[in-house]
Amino acid sequence: MNASAGIDSLWILVSAALVFMMQAGFLCLEVGFVRNRNIGATALKNLIDWAMVGLAFFLFGFGLLFGDDVGGWVGSRYFLLEGLDPSAFPGGGLFFLFQLGFAATAVTIVSGALAERVSFVSYLAAAFLMGALVYPVFGHWVWGPGGWLANLGFIDFAGSMVVHGLGGTMALVGAWIVGPRLGRFDPDGNARPLEAHHLGLSVLGVTILWLGWWGFNGGSTLAFDGRVAGIIVNTNLAASAGGLSAFAHARLLQGSRCVEAKLAGGVLGGLVAITASCHLATPAAAAAIGLLAGVIHNLAYEALERLRIDDPVGAVPVHLACGIFGVVAVALFAPADALPRGRVEQLGVQLLGAVACVAWSGATAYGLFRALRAVVGLRVSPAEERTGLTLGRFVEPEDDDALDAEALRVLLEGGAG
Amino acid sequence: MNASAGIDSLWILVSAALVFMMQAGFLCLEVGFVRNRNIGATALKNLIDWAMVGLAFFLFGFGLLFGDDVGGWVGSRYFLLEGLDPSAFPGGGLFFLFQLGFAATAVTIVSGALAERVSFVSYLAAAFLMGALVYPVFGHWVWGPGGWLANLGFIDFAGSMVVHGLGGTMALVGAWIVGPRLGRFDPDGNARPLEAHHLGLSVLGVTILWLGWWGFNGGSTLAFDGRVAGIIVNTNLAASAGGLSAFAHARLLQGSRCVEAKLAGGVLGGLVAITASCHLATPAAAAAIGLLAGVIHNLAYEALERLRIDDPVGAVPVHLACGIFGVVAVALFAPADALPRGRVEQLGVQLLGAVACVAWSGATAYGLFRALRAVVGLRVSPAEERTGLTLGRFVEPEDDDALDAEALRVLLEGGAG
Amino acid sequence: MNASAGIDSLWILVSAALVFMMQAGFLCLEVGFVRNRNIGATALKNLIDWAMVGLAFFLFGFGLLFGDDVGGWVGSRYFLLEGLDPSAFPGGGLFFLFQLGFAATAVTIVSGALAERVSFVSYLAAAFLMGALVYPVFGHWVWGPGGWLANLGFIDFAGSMVVHGLGGTMALVGAWIVGPRLGRFDPDGNARPLEAHHLGLSVLGVTILWLGWWGFNGGSTLAFDGRVAGIIVNTNLAASAGGLSAFAHARLLQGSRCVEAKLAGGVLGGLVAITASCHLATPAAAAAIGLLAGVIHNLAYEALERLRIDDPVGAVPVHLACGIFGVVAVALFAPADALPRGRVEQLGVQLLGAVACVAWSGATAYGLFRALRAVVGLRVSPAEERTGLTLGRFVEPEDDDALDAEALRVLLEGGAG
Repeated sequence: MNASAGIDSLWILVSAALVFMMQAGFLCLEVGFVRNRNIGATALKNLIDWAMVGLAFFLFGFGLLFGDDVGGWVGSRYFLLEGLDPSAFPGGGLFFLFQLGFAATAVTIVSGALAERVSFVSYLAAAFLMGALVYPVFGHWVWGPGGWLANLGFIDFAGSMVVHGLGGTMALVGAWIVGPRLGRFDPDGNARPLEAHHLGLSVLGVTILWLGWWGFNGGSTLAFDGRVAGIIVNTNLAASAGGLSAFAHARLLQGSRCVEAKLAGGVLGGLVAITASCHLATPAAAAAIGLLAGVIHNLAYEALERLRIDDPVGAVPVHLACGIFGVVAVALFAPADALPRGRVEQLGVQLLGAVACVAWSGATAYGLFRALRAVVGLRVSPAEERTGLTLGRFVEPEDDDALDAEALRVLLEGGAG
Repeated sequence: MNASAGIDSLWILVSAALVFMMQAGFLCLEVGFVRNRNIGATALKNLIDWAMVGLAFFLFGFGLLFGDDVGGWVGSRYFLLEGLDPSAFPGGGLFFLFQLGFAATAVTIVSGALAERVSFVSYLAAAFLMGALVYPVFGHWVWGPGGWLANLGFIDFAGSMVVHGLGGTMALVGAWIVGPRLGRFDPDGNARPLEAHHLGLSVLGVTILWLGWWGFNGGSTLAFDGRVAGIIVNTNLAASAGGLSAFAHARLLQGSRCVEAKLAGGVLGGLVAITASCHLATPAAAAAIGLLAGVIHNLAYEALERLRIDDPVGAVPVHLACGIFGVVAVALFAPADALPRGRVEQLGVQLLGAVACVAWSGATAYGLFRALRAVVGLRVSPAEERTGLTLGRFVEPEDDDALDAEALRVLLEGGAG
Repeated sequence: MNASAGIDSLWILVSAALVFMMQAGFLCLEVGFVRNRNIGATALKNLIDWAMVGLAFFLFGFGLLFGDDVGGWVGSRYFLLEGLDPSAFPGGGLFFLFQLGFAATAVTIVSGALAERVSFVSYLAAAFLMGALVYPVFGHWVWGPGGWLANLGFIDFAGSMVVHGLGGTMALVGAWIVGPRLGRFDPDGNARPLEAHHLGLSVLGVTILWLGWWGFNGGSTLAFDGRVAGIIVNTNLAASAGGLSAFAHARLLQGSRCVEAKLAGGVLGGLVAITASCHLATPAAAAAIGLLAGVIHNLAYEALERLRIDDPVGAVPVHLACGIFGVVAVALFAPADALPRGRVEQLGVQLLGAVACVAWSGATAYGLFRALRAVVGLRVSPAEERTGLTLGRFVEPEDDDALDAEALRVLLEGGAG
C-alpha cells in the first residue's frame, strides 16, 4: 500500500486497540461496583462477552452491518468475512477489528446493568444475539451503505446513539425484566445502596474508558487526517466538563447522595454525549455539551432509582440518557454550515433516529429477554444471589420460577416496577 | 528512513508496547490468584522480573539469540547492543525492544507457577539466567540466523513453543522442584483449592494479555503489511473459541470443578495455540485450533493436579500444553502449499522442535533450580509461607533445610511428587 | 500532510496516549497505598485531577507555556487554543494533547503526597492553579520559545525537573503544610507505617507508569526518527537498574524497613532520573544513572521520614530527589561533545535550573496551599479522616480549625514539622 494509506491503516489499528482496551475499562468499572461475592463471575462475564461478540460479529454482525444493502434495512454480504476485499474498506481487515470493538461496546453496556443477578448462560446467549443481530441492524440504518437513516441525513459520527443509546436501551429493558437485586429496594420501595466492593477499580475503569475513547472517536475518521486532533481535544473537554458539572450538580443541587457514582458517571456521560458531534463541535461547544451531559446524567440517575429499576453501574443514565442528548446536540451545537437542512429539520431527523433506535433495540431486547426468561431462565436462584454468583448451571428453569415467586413478593411489598 | 520503513518501524514499536503491556497482564493474573498475605511480594516479583530480564537480555540474551551464528547453536554478537547496526534488523533498536518483550514473557510464565512459596532472591537469579541464556539459546535455534531448527523447516511464527512452550516447561520443572504450597494437597494427596484473593484482577489480566497478543502475533510480521489484519483476526477467533470451549467442556464434561480458572485459561490457551500458525491459518482453522486448545487446556489442568504439582496460575496447561499443540497444529491446519515437505514430514519436524524445546529448557531449568536450591535455597521458610511472603532474605539456606523436612513430611503423608 | 510528517504525528499521538495512560498508573499507585476507607475518594481525586488540568491547560496553561514569549518569562498566546496554527507545532493539536499529559503528570504527583487527608474541593482548586499557572510558567522558562533557562543552555530533555522536580517540590510543600496523617508518627515522633490496602495495585501502577514512560521520553523527540529506539532503551535500562539498586541498597545497607516501597520507588526514581538525558546518554551511562537514582531515592525516603513529613506514596523521593539528580546527571554523564560549554559550566547551569524550579514551584505552592488553608480549609476534619474520606463539603472552615487544634496537639506531642 502507499504510505498515506499505510498511515491511515495503522491509525485504524491503533484505534481498534484503544477500543479493545475499553473492554478492560468496562470490566474494571463493573467489577468494582459489585459485592465481594460476585467478583469472579462478574469479571468472567465481561471476558466471555467479548469472546461471544467476537464470534457473533464475525459470523453475522459485520455482514448485516456493512454488507450490500437490502432495502435500506440490512446488509447481506461478508458473513464470516468471506468476500471481504481489503480495498473495499479503509484498512481492510483492520476495519473489521475496529468495528468489532464497537459491537462489543454496545453489548458490554448491557452487562453492567444486569450485574449480580443475571444467569451466566442466559447472558451469553443474549450477548450473542445482540452482537449478531440487534446492534448490526440498527448500525446498518446509520452507517451501512444505503441505510435509511443515513439517507435521511441522520448524523451520529462515532455512535452516541448507534452504540451507546442502543446499548443503554437494551440495558434498561434488561434491568427492568430481570428485576432488581434482592435488597436493592426496601419493602417501601426506597433505594438502599448495595456496597461497591472497590470503587477504586471502578474509577480505574473510567480512566481506561476515557483513554479508549480517543480511539473510539478519533479513529472514526478512518483516516489519520487533520480532524483527529480536534476530535480528541473535543472528547477530552466534554469528559472534563461532564465530570465537573456532575460533581457540582450532585453536591450543590442534589444533596450528597451517590456523589461518587455521579462524578464517575458524569465523565462517561460527557464522553457519550460528544461522540455524535465530536467532528463538528467547536471546543467551546464540546465543553457545553459536557456540562449539560453531567446534569442530564444525574437527573436520569435519580429518575431511574425512582422507577425502582436497579442498574448497578449506572449504564442507563450514562449511555441512554446522554446518548440521546448526544444526537440531539448535533442539531443544537454543530456549526450551521454543517447542517444543510437547517437546525430545526435536523433536530427532527436526529429525534427520529433516537426514537428508531429505542424502538428497535427496546423491542428486540424485550423479546429476547422475555424469551430467555421463559425458556432457560434469566436469573440465578435467590440462594445463589445471596451466596454469590457462579458461572451458571445448564439450566434449571425451576430456579427461575422460584425467583419469580420471590420477585413477585418483593414487588407486592413495594419493590421494583 | 523512507515512509514505508517508517510505518513498519512504528508498528514494531506499537507492538513492542503492546507486548510490554502483557507484563501488566501477567502481574494482574498472578496477583489475583494469590492469597491476601502474598499480594505485595507477588506483584514486586513480577515487576523486578521485567527489570532483571531487561538487563539480562541487553547484556547477553539478544546477542545469543540474534548474533552471528555459531554452528546453528548460538549467536555471538551484539552483546550490550554493541555493533548493532539499526539497518541490520527491521526497526533497528525497536526490534530489540520488541524481542525484549518476548524474553520477558517467557520468563514471567515461570513466575506464576512458583507463586506463594519461591524465595524472592532465588527467583531473581533464575529470572536472570532464563532471560540471559535459556530462552535466547532455544530462540536462536528457531529464529536466529542459521539456527538448526530453522534450517530443518520448523515453523513457529510468533512463539507457541519458542516463548510459551519454553516458559511452560521451565514453569513445570520449577513447580515440581519447589514443591506444592503448604496445604495445597491434603495428606491423602487430594487437591484443596487455596483461595484466589481477587479473581477479578486475574481476569483483568487475561483481558490485558489478549490485547497484548495483538502486538505479540501481529507485530511478528516485523512489517506493517497485509498480513497483520488476518493475523489479529485469527488471534481473536482462537481466543474466543478457546474460552468458550474450555467453559463448555469444563461444565458439561468435567463437572463443576475450577470452571472459573478453566474459562480464563481456555482463552489464554487459544491464544498460545494460534501463535505458531496465526499467519497461515484460515479463520475457520483458527477457530478450530482455539476450540481444541480449550479442551487440551482443561485436560492438562486436571492431569497436573493428579500429578500433585502445584501451579497456582495454571501456567503449565496454558503455555506448555497449548504451546505444544500450537506447533503441532501448524502441520495439521496450515494450507498444504505452506508446507512444502507435506504434512507428515512437517509434523515430524514440528514434534522434533517441541521435543528439543522441552529437552533443552527442561534440562537447564532442572539444573538451575536444583543448583539454586542447594546453594541459596529456593523456597521461603514454612513460617514465612504461612504468614506471607516478604522480599526475601540474603539468604539462610538453613531455612531451606527446614523446609525440606516439612516438604518431606508432606510428601510422605501423601503430598506432591 | 506528507508521509514523513504523518508518521511523526502518529508517533506523537501514540506517545500522548501512553502519557495519558500514566494517569491510570498514578491512580493505581496512589489507591493501592491508601487504607480501605479512602479507596473511592482517592481514585476520584485522581480522575477529577485529570479533568481539572484538562480545562486549566486548555484555558491558560498551554498558552503560558508555548505562546509567544514575553521577556523570557511567560507565553502570551494560544489561550483556548485560539490561533493555534497546526503547522506551528509538530503534530498541531496532537502536540497539545501530548503536552497536556505532561501538565497532568506534574499535578498528579502532588495528589499522592496529600493522600488520605486533603480536602477534595481544596485539592481541585490547587490542581487547577498548578495546571494553569505553576507548571506552565516554569515550563516556558525551559521549553517555551525564548525561555530564559533555555537561553542559558539548561538541558532537560523530557522533564526530570520541569515535570517531576516541579511536581515533587509542590508535593513536598503540600505535604508539609497539610501535615501528616493522624497516627503516622507516634507522640515521640517515630514513624509508624499505615497499612497500604493493596500493594499489588500500586505495583501495577508502577508497571503502567514504566510503559507510559516510553511515550513520555520517546515522544519528546516530537518526531519518529532514529533517536526514539535509543531513548527507550536508555529509559528501560535506568528503570531496571534503579529498581535493582534500590532493592539491594535497602536490603543490604538500610535493613529491612519499607523494602517494598523502595523497590517500587527505585524503578520510578530511575525513570525520573534518566528523563533529562535519555537522548544523550549511552546505555552504560543510563544504567549508571539508574543505579545511583535507586540509592538516592532510598536516602531521600529515609530523610523525609526523619523530617516527619508524611508522603504516603513516596512522591518526594521519586520525583524531587531523582528529578534534581536527573538534571545534574546531564552534566555528569552526557558525552562531552553534547556539552559545548564544558562539564563544569554545564553543571552550574543545571544546578541553577534546579534551584530556579524549586524556588518558583516551592514559593507558589507555599502561597497556594496556605491561602487554601486559610480560606476554604486544606484538610478534612479529624472525624472524616478517621472514618474515611468523602468527596468533600462546600466548605466548613471550622473543620479546619478543629483540625488545626488536633494537628497542634500532635505536633506538641512530638509530631511532624
